[in-house]
Amino acid sequence: MERRLLDAALDRALDLAERGPLTGGNPRVGCVILDAAGRPLAEGWHRGAGTPHAEAAALAAVPAEHRHRLAGAVAVVTLEPCRHTGRTPPCAAALHAAGVAEVVHAVADPHPAAAGGASWLADHGVTTVDAARAGLDPALVTRAHELLHGWTTAVRRRRPWLLGKTATSLDGRVAAADGTSRWITGPDARAHAHAVRAQVDAIVVGTGTVRADDPALTARTPDGRPAPHQPLRVVVGHREVPDAARVRRGPGEWLHLRTHDLVAVLAELDRRGLRRVLLEGGPTLLSAALRAGLVDELHAYVAPVLLGAGPGAVGDLGITTIADAARWRTRRTDRLGADLLLVATTPSLHPTTQGAA
Amino acid sequence: MERRLLDAALDRALDLAERGPLTGGNPRVGCVILDAAGRPLAEGWHRGAGTPHAEAAALAAVPAEHRHRLAGAVAVVTLEPCRHTGRTPPCAAALHAAGVAEVVHAVADPHPAAAGGASWLADHGVTTVDAARAGLDPALVTRAHELLHGWTTAVRRRRPWLLGKTATSLDGRVAAADGTSRWITGPDARAHAHAVRAQVDAIVVGTGTVRADDPALTARTPDGRPAPHQPLRVVVGHREVPDAARVRRGPGEWLHLRTHDLVAVLAELDRRGLRRVLLEGGPTLLSAALRAGLVDELHAYVAPVLLGAGPGAVGDLGITTIADAARWRTRRTDRLGADLLLVATTPSLHPTTQGAA
Repeated sequence: MERRLLDAALDRALDLAERGPLTGGNPRVGCVILDAAGRPLAEGWHRGAGTPHAEAAALAAVPAEHRHRLAGAVAVVTLEPCRHTGRTPPCAAALHAAGVAEVVHAVADPHPAAAGGASWLADHGVTTVDAARAGLDPALVTRAHELLHGWTTAVRRRRPWLLGKTATSLDGRVAAADGTSRWITGPDARAHAHAVRAQVDAIVVGTGTVRADDPALTARTPDGRPAPHQPLRVVVGHREVPDAARVRRGPGEWLHLRTHDLVAVLAELDRRGLRRVLLEGGPTLLSAALRAGLVDELHAYVAPVLLGAGPGAVGDLGITTIADAARWRTRRTDRLGADLLLVATTPSLHPTTQGAA
Repeated sequence: MERRLLDAALDRALDLAERGPLTGGNPRVGCVILDAAGRPLAEGWHRGAGTPHAEAAALAAVPAEHRHRLAGAVAVVTLEPCRHTGRTPPCAAALHAAGVAEVVHAVADPHPAAAGGASWLADHGVTTVDAARAGLDPALVTRAHELLHGWTTAVRRRRPWLLGKTATSLDGRVAAADGTSRWITGPDARAHAHAVRAQVDAIVVGTGTVRADDPALTARTPDGRPAPHQPLRVVVGHREVPDAARVRRGPGEWLHLRTHDLVAVLAELDRRGLRRVLLEGGPTLLSAALRAGLVDELHAYVAPVLLGAGPGAVGDLGITTIADAARWRTRRTDRLGADLLLVATTPSLHPTTQGAA
């Protein structure tokens, strides 16, 4: 089929994929089905765990009077179709059974249980096309990899994608000399931070933060109401969580993991199928995660304030000379009211190439 | 005259004003002359000290065969015309002599020697119009005030507009634990900092910085060549400037002021007609200027690097609790390669209202 038509379908499939949730363990996937003549026939996207995959949603969206056009059709998907039966039947088989003749995917499935959909399809006579190898628009392929980056990385490494967060003055302080910190950043930055909470599967804090600040750690909308999705709130450390701690109350679940070993914490969260985890633990926990190389993405909120004294955003990282300092990859910078947000990913990951087929 | 025509003329005059230099002691001004029927007749802008003012440039740009159209014409200027004779004759008299019937200005002239052009014109039968009072587009009036803000503030307070600068890691450090700092920020941020040097009248550093880092403090273009405009390089402090110091060499002039009193330094620079001064002195000098409330504008370059240890961007500012911290006004945020630039003005100034007529 003409590359122009496939590019347009992939572009649309990416738009669809972006409608999916960032949370819930499953990837965000979009699918567009073109008939043999290249005309759009149906589209679908994955709405979250327990709902149909993008391919199944697209197949289900084909009107009865057009089902004959599935013969010889081309399915363009952002992620390689799965071949395993989870809560939903395998998509590779469904596409084959529907008469689809060709499947184009942008990102190969890194999931040990699900991968191999493309080769299963090829074994069953369906033409399978890797978008990059077939010369589709590289910008679209990159966009697909970036969209799925957190998820593919989590699956490949068998641990969640870890977001770290700082909220500092321009001189890097998280509080004034007397420890006061409400509020360094302004309302727009705080609303953004709440929106991020609603986009992760779990939030991790230390017992020290719970005992000192007693945060609720819930995700709230700008008008103060609970967000529809609440992350699992995970308190790590050996000390007790006080009976009256706000983290014990709803909305949302909470969990106490009696360990300081962040690798073990992440392994446990992975076991629970959690893919995106936000570290909100204060300088000590963040520094430990940074030293261990566990932070994949950093959200740095910076307020136009100079303090001159007060605790810093991170403690000792074992860096003594400038050449040792890792340069993060700036992914995005946003103005949030008077504040700034810099989103960066760790230098040790190469988002657009790792995870590529 | 119709407001729509005056708004369009002021918009154009502002575009013209922006072509002028930020340095050199004089304000950036643009002028558009409309004939009595509201048709654009000529335009001009000020190109810097010693060259014609915007009004004179516009009058000179009227072709001989159209000079009769100056009778009853309207001059729209971003700044109130001057009435004093400096290196050029007063604009108010020139406009009157040319036959202009009405003068519209966006910003009143705060200059003690030059102000009063509007009242002089009114005394001589020329209709004078303050743009804000006449109901011209408030966004244009604000733009005019912001364009001239540094200059009007410098003139009103009889001291230069002072820019402070920090270049830090995300955790607010200007160097690693061992003092190394080349380079925290990347090439785009450094090129920007050089462009700013070319847009100030003077750069101020302490003798300590000169002795420790031996900076040249020249403004260079991205290809490493000297910029056409070089700021005056001012070294402050009692210690000697070593004979071999790079700051002693060209291009550009340098000056040693044997004082630690920044107020005295700024007074001396004002006496020399300097309006925009950049403080590049390191944490000690910057902290002193901040404590004294002398920094009008802050340029904070932030690199996506975490250091965990090392000297901070500013020393003690006398702030002990968060409520004491002044919140700067974020004016602009720019992405510079992987780095960020936040431009903010001091909370003690209200740029769009102070200096308004």
